[in-house]
Amino acid sequence: MKLAIIGAGTVGTSVAEMAVTYGHTVTALTDSTSASIDSDGLDVEATLSQKRDTNEIGTDSVEDALASEYDVLVEATPTTLDTAQPAYDHIRAAFERDRDVVLANKGPVAQRYADVRALERESEGELRFEATVGGAMPVLSTIEDYGPEHVTALRGVLNGTANFILSRMAAEGLDYEHVLVEAQDLGVAEADPSFDVEGTDTALKCVIAANVLAQGEREYTLDDASVDGIVGTSGSALSLANADGRTVRLVGEIVDDEIRVGPRIIPQQSPLVVSGTENIVQLATENAGLLSVSGHGAGGSATAISIMADIRRLE
Amino acid sequence: MKLAIIGAGTVGTSVAEMAVTYGHTVTALTDSTSASIDSDGLDVEATLSQKRDTNEIGTDSVEDALASEYDVLVEATPTTLDTAQPAYDHIRAAFERDRDVVLANKGPVAQRYADVRALERESEGELRFEATVGGAMPVLSTIEDYGPEHVTALRGVLNGTANFILSRMAAEGLDYEHVLVEAQDLGVAEADPSFDVEGTDTALKCVIAANVLAQGEREYTLDDASVDGIVGTSGSALSLANADGRTVRLVGEIVDDEIRVGPRIIPQQSPLVVSGTENIVQLATENAGLLSVSGHGAGGSATAISIMADIRRLE
Repeated sequence: MKLAIIGAGTVGTSVAEMAVTYGHTVTALTDSTSASIDSDGLDVEATLSQKRDTNEIGTDSVEDALASEYDVLVEATPTTLDTAQPAYDHIRAAFERDRDVVLANKGPVAQRYADVRALERESEGELRFEATVGGAMPVLSTIEDYGPEHVTALRGVLNGTANFILSRMAAEGLDYEHVLVEAQDLGVAEADPSFDVEGTDTALKCVIAANVLAQGEREYTLDDASVDGIVGTSGSALSLANADGRTVRLVGEIVDDEIRVGPRIIPQQSPLVVSGTENIVQLATENAGLLSVSGHGAGGSATAISIMADIRRLE
Repeated sequence: MKLAIIGAGTVGTSVAEMAVTYGHTVTALTDSTSASIDSDGLDVEATLSQKRDTNEIGTDSVEDALASEYDVLVEATPTTLDTAQPAYDHIRAAFERDRDVVLANKGPVAQRYADVRALERESEGELRFEATVGGAMPVLSTIEDYGPEHVTALRGVLNGTANFILSRMAAEGLDYEHVLVEAQDLGVAEADPSFDVEGTDTALKCVIAANVLAQGEREYTLDDASVDGIVGTSGSALSLANADGRTVRLVGEIVDDEIRVGPRIIPQQSPLVVSGTENIVQLATENAGLLSVSGHGAGGSATAISIMADIRRLE
């Protein structure tokens, strides 16, 4: 397939690099202000080198890229909330040309799900967004295959930064501030970590999953989620839990049609107690108990392989 | 979709009962000697009642069912090895009529994989067999979506009977014979448990997965697997392991293109240490580390929901 990749950050770059090994051609790659376009296929390495050297990906415009020849638009610009722009406009441009759209960007399907599905209905193109929930883990495809109507609840650890921090606090008896700095030094937490540690990232993923489960009966946005983060969790909270054979993890859940995110005290042997930056999602199914998927929930490669899986499903 | 369900044991019965809630029509249902056929859709409850009362499912023949009007043939007769009959003939009959085939029966894709794929290539029909590996867990679909060529190894606990026995031995310090009887009383182990406790069931599932991963480059059968079971595992082996914070589980793995099944001593915190009859499969991916799926690996409902998922993928 010919891929137009919108966004050249960690995810866009990983998708561009992985695309060739999956048999695809990258015909356009954009950053926030420019684009590189070649309908016969870009030299991805050369294009990324140019970006590193000149801070511009090419001499074309993002508009040119949206108008170029491609099969699938991969939206990998940074997640924005509210109106989910400019991602929403990118999606609309693709659907107006009956192209398929694969999202890594959570904004459109968290904050404007009904609008995006309406654009899709008007189009020959199809929307997929596995990478927006759980990185490499096949969460949305499992829900899709088993039938959203047959999945009765979802629960998971969906943010690697928060999980890493809590794991380290528990393992070493350290306090939050200390481990946050360690996480930032390792590149596991951002300079501004609020999106992760305040629970927003987990909440967005639950909102997206809830929109899928609702199948159009109800539309969720971030405002519908009850969200508590892990900021300032004390080392003593973890020590107390540990004394009972339990620990604390940032858990997101969709239960009885409500979305809740917050630190939970859970038994140490619970499958939800994953280590480091691992993620896990448990789906309660109507007929077959709990199904769980776990793996790398974030990172360029983890996100990119779910985008490759979505593209394969479109073929 | 119209389903012709071949086999009215635990799995066939579960599929027939579940089909209607998934929006499908059961147009034929067979046991080993007879069939009930209605191209407008059987009354599944009445048909199953008749089977319970008379030990015959209907007054038509299995041949009639294979020749009847349907979209998808669901092969749910008991797994047989060697020539995988009569399942193989059922598959051939469906493909000769360009119908789709969904398997719960492991025999054809474990013992005659190349033959079955050849039949499929000659047909407009498509083959799917998620339910043959890991029950409710989305193992084969995950391999398919992420690309078999990008999955470098597989490891798992794939037999609930063996896992239940080892879990109970570890938890209670009981010996093998004692726990086997308990498992049989609970219906977790068969009267003749050899298929499960000798590792054959796990091996067949690994053989099927290995065939999928090989993508036609190599064909595996049960003879290619190195298989050790759990028969006669001693309580003291488990106690010794426990003293080191470890335990014993029956693990199947595909590593470096070889299939090995046997009891393994593993750390108690390993994700492979699942409880009771749970199963887990870990996939090593080229680009995104370990992906794991876990859930109910056996039972009528667990198997049936994977069949429903396969049918959804065919639509």
